[in-house]
Amino acid sequence: MTESTYPQNTSNKVNRYKHQATYDVETIRSIVNSTPVLHVSFVPEPTIPAPIVLPMIGQLGLYPGDESRGEGDWKCYLHGYVSSRLMKLADDAVKRGEEGLPLCIAATKVDGFVLTLTPNSHNYNYRSAVLQGFATIVDDQEEKIWAMQLITNSVVPGRYTNTRIPPDGAEMQSTRILKLKVTGASGKVREGIPEDERKDMKREDVLDAVWTGVIPVYEKLGEPQPGPYNRIANIPEHVTKFVKEENETREKYAFEAAHKPAPVKREKKSEDS
Amino acid sequence: MTESTYPQNTSNKVNRYKHQATYDVETIRSIVNSTPVLHVSFVPEPTIPAPIVLPMIGQLGLYPGDESRGEGDWKCYLHGYVSSRLMKLADDAVKRGEEGLPLCIAATKVDGFVLTLTPNSHNYNYRSAVLQGFATIVDDQEEKIWAMQLITNSVVPGRYTNTRIPPDGAEMQSTRILKLKVTGASGKVREGIPEDERKDMKREDVLDAVWTGVIPVYEKLGEPQPGPYNRIANIPEHVTKFVKEENETREKYAFEAAHKPAPVKREKKSEDS
Repeated sequence: MTESTYPQNTSNKVNRYKHQATYDVETIRSIVNSTPVLHVSFVPEPTIPAPIVLPMIGQLGLYPGDESRGEGDWKCYLHGYVSSRLMKLADDAVKRGEEGLPLCIAATKVDGFVLTLTPNSHNYNYRSAVLQGFATIVDDQEEKIWAMQLITNSVVPGRYTNTRIPPDGAEMQSTRILKLKVTGASGKVREGIPEDERKDMKREDVLDAVWTGVIPVYEKLGEPQPGPYNRIANIPEHVTKFVKEENETREKYAFEAAHKPAPVKREKKSEDS
Repeated sequence: MTESTYPQNTSNKVNRYKHQATYDVETIRSIVNSTPVLHVSFVPEPTIPAPIVLPMIGQLGLYPGDESRGEGDWKCYLHGYVSSRLMKLADDAVKRGEEGLPLCIAATKVDGFVLTLTPNSHNYNYRSAVLQGFATIVDDQEEKIWAMQLITNSVVPGRYTNTRIPPDGAEMQSTRILKLKVTGASGKVREGIPEDERKDMKREDVLDAVWTGVIPVYEKLGEPQPGPYNRIANIPEHVTKFVKEENETREKYAFEAAHKPAPVKREKKSEDS
C-alpha cells in the first residue's frame, strides 16, 4: 500500500530549483523524523487569509492499528507546544464534517554555508521537507500512548521505557496529540561544493580575490549534564550511545556534503513559479 | 520611536506557558537574527484556509532611508528560496490596495534536550520568536542593495564586501526581496534544569531509577572546507573569526542554559488557550 513517492499536485509541486526537489517518501520521512522542531502553520480564522506558524515536536509514523486495517501511509503526529487554539480548530473542523484542520508542516536542516564569488550565488547546503494535509485529534487511548512513545523516543531513542511509565490518568487527559493525514509532500536537498556563474568563473581578478568554500554546519550534542535531583551516577547507555552516534552521523554528513559535486545547473529564473 | 516591547494583541498573545513568553524587542530581534533559516507561512488562495510554510533566509533591520524618515520599527527582510508565487501574491495584495501579503514568520533555536522523570515533563531548552505582519516587494534599488548586504552578512559577518560586488544589472533584476512590516511579535524562551511534577519528585523508586539532566544542543560550525576553484591559500579572517567566535558563543549558551534554574512552575493546563 505504501507508495515510494508522494504524488505531485499543484500545491506541492516544486517549481524553483526543480533539480533539488524530491518526492521520495524515504527522503522526506528521514528529514522530518530527524528534525527536532517542526514548523506548523494553520489559519486561525477561516475567513481571514493570515496564517500562524508555530514550532512543535512531531514524527511521521504508522500506527500498528492503522496498519492492521490495511493503511500504508504514514501520518505525522504532533505534540508539545500544541496550543489549545490549534486543538480547538481541529475539533471544530471535524464537527463541521470536514476531514480535519488544514495544516502545513515544514522541517529544515542546515548542513553548511556555501560561500561563493558573489553574494547572489551564496547558498546553504540543506535538507527541507514540507507536508500538507488535514489534522485531527487522537482520541484512541492506545494510539495516543503509541504516539507519545514515538515522540519521546524521537528525542532520545529508548527514552520512553527508561522513564516512569505508563502515563497516569491525569497525564493522559492533559496530553493532546494531533494526527496529520498527509495529502501532499515535497522535499528539497542541496549538497555540494560552491557553484558560481560562468561570467565570474572567467574573471581572474575575482578568482584571485575571493575565498570560496563551505562551512559545514551540524547540530552538536554536548556532554549530558546531570540535573540537581539526578541520583544515577553514570549517564545511562541509551543517552551516551545516542549522543555519540548522532554526533558522528551529523558531523560526517555535513563534511561529506561540503565535498560533493555541485547540483546540476540551475534552470533559468523565468521558469520559476 | 522604537518601542522596547511589542504590543500584545489577540493574535500574538502567548497563552500557554505564559511565564516563558517575551515581547521584548531585543530578545525577539536576537532570536530572529541568529537563526539561519526562518519559516515563513502564507495563504496562497485567500478563500481557502490552507497555509503554506517555506524555509527562507531573512533578517530584521532598519533601513537608513526609513530611519531618516523618522521610522523606528525594524522590518524583516526575506531573501533566498523566495518562490515567485510568494512574490506574485505580495504584488497582487498591494495592487488591490492592501497593506501587503499577510505573513507569519517563525525562528526557533534548540538549546538542549531536557530529560526528566516522566515522558510528559520532557522538554527542550529553546528560544523561539514569531513575527506577524504584511509583506511587500522591495523596489527601491538602494534599499535592495542594503538588504542584500544585510542578509549576506547574516550568514558570515563582513562577507558581502569580501565578494565580487556590486551586483550587476542582471543580478539586481533577478534578486527579489520581501520586506515585512511587523504588526505583532512574540517570543518564548525556556532554559534551565529539568523540572518534574511534585507527585514524581516524592517517589524514591522513580528517583532511583531514572537519569535526569540536559543534553546541550547547539549548531556547530565545522572547519571551513575550501572549494575546488578556490585560490586563496589561507582561509580569510572574516571566516575564521566568525567560526571561532560563533562556536564559543553557541556552546557556552547551551551549557549555561542546562544549569540555570528551572522556569517558574507551569500554570494549570486549563488556563491554556
